[in-house]
Amino acid sequence: MAFARSGPVRSEAARRSILQAAAELLAERGYESLAIEQIAARAGVGKQTIYRWWPSKGAILAECLLEGTMLDGRLDLPDTGDIRADLRDWLGRIFALLERPEGEGLLRALIAAAADNAEVGRRLRDSLSGSESVSGRLARAAGTAPNLTPVAPFEEIAEALIGAVLLRALSRTPVEPGDADRLLDAILGR
Amino acid sequence: MAFARSGPVRSEAARRSILQAAAELLAERGYESLAIEQIAARAGVGKQTIYRWWPSKGAILAECLLEGTMLDGRLDLPDTGDIRADLRDWLGRIFALLERPEGEGLLRALIAAAADNAEVGRRLRDSLSGSESVSGRLARAAGTAPNLTPVAPFEEIAEALIGAVLLRALSRTPVEPGDADRLLDAILGR
Repeated sequence: MAFARSGPVRSEAARRSILQAAAELLAERGYESLAIEQIAARAGVGKQTIYRWWPSKGAILAECLLEGTMLDGRLDLPDTGDIRADLRDWLGRIFALLERPEGEGLLRALIAAAADNAEVGRRLRDSLSGSESVSGRLARAAGTAPNLTPVAPFEEIAEALIGAVLLRALSRTPVEPGDADRLLDAILGR
Repeated sequence: MAFARSGPVRSEAARRSILQAAAELLAERGYESLAIEQIAARAGVGKQTIYRWWPSKGAILAECLLEGTMLDGRLDLPDTGDIRADLRDWLGRIFALLERPEGEGLLRALIAAAADNAEVGRRLRDSLSGSESVSGRLARAAGTAPNLTPVAPFEEIAEALIGAVLLRALSRTPVEPGDADRLLDAILGR
């Protein structure tokens, strides 16, 4: 992305303000009613500045995901060497997010953005687990859980785990004690 | 739902026209740009007729899901007594849907509707498998697959399976040969 018209320092500050404003407004209002005008107003830039750099609100949100402007490390998958404990910790933080209205709203808004914008869709899965993909972590843990045999379909197991979390947000299923453990039993075996 | 103002026969015809128009337009245009005006125009009714019966486009789509106006039996989970074969058949039809642009668009539009409207969200999961829930079918098949022990968390296994399908639609992952079998290996064990 080029920032030729204004100086690079000022452009970078504006770019960060825009990403921050977009992330905040998405969490507050959801995806459908999010408008470029609102993002511009909150970021203190003109609408044309935004349109010069991004073709759509979805494109801004895709960049937010890539840069960690949203979810900002809160959902990083830890690495203690114990895959079940690490996933339980990670799921616990996701479920805690789902139990707060603004957290559930943010996750549903991200799903709506992913449904509308291909780039957000491609990035959402990886953005939920931080720097390492869930499938990569599962593959490294091969042999440590009944379903994680050395030839297990790690990509599909990761899809099932992350997909279950997204479905939970979409179906408004309340989180109950033991849910994370039951989901891990389903995914890793007992 | 009461249809007091006009005769019941005429109201029922209008109601069905509205549901049909909403389902068609959702598939054609996606959720975000779907508008009550368009639904009214295609159904040949006034906008006020729609607003008298439903508070929002999401509410219309929730009723479409409940009545089977969308997906109309194409995704029914068969019951041959062989759970793996039944699920492979069902996943095969979902993946075939995802491979056609209009099918993928419809599924993503439904996900966007579910993100925005709680009732659509609650119904989407069950609507994908027809008359019997996936978890109910898994429970009936207890003992027939490595992960389907009699005390398996059937609800969570079903969530993982359906969630993986939704994530597939969101992440625009192309369907490859063997995908259904790998996902079934991940969910049912090998």
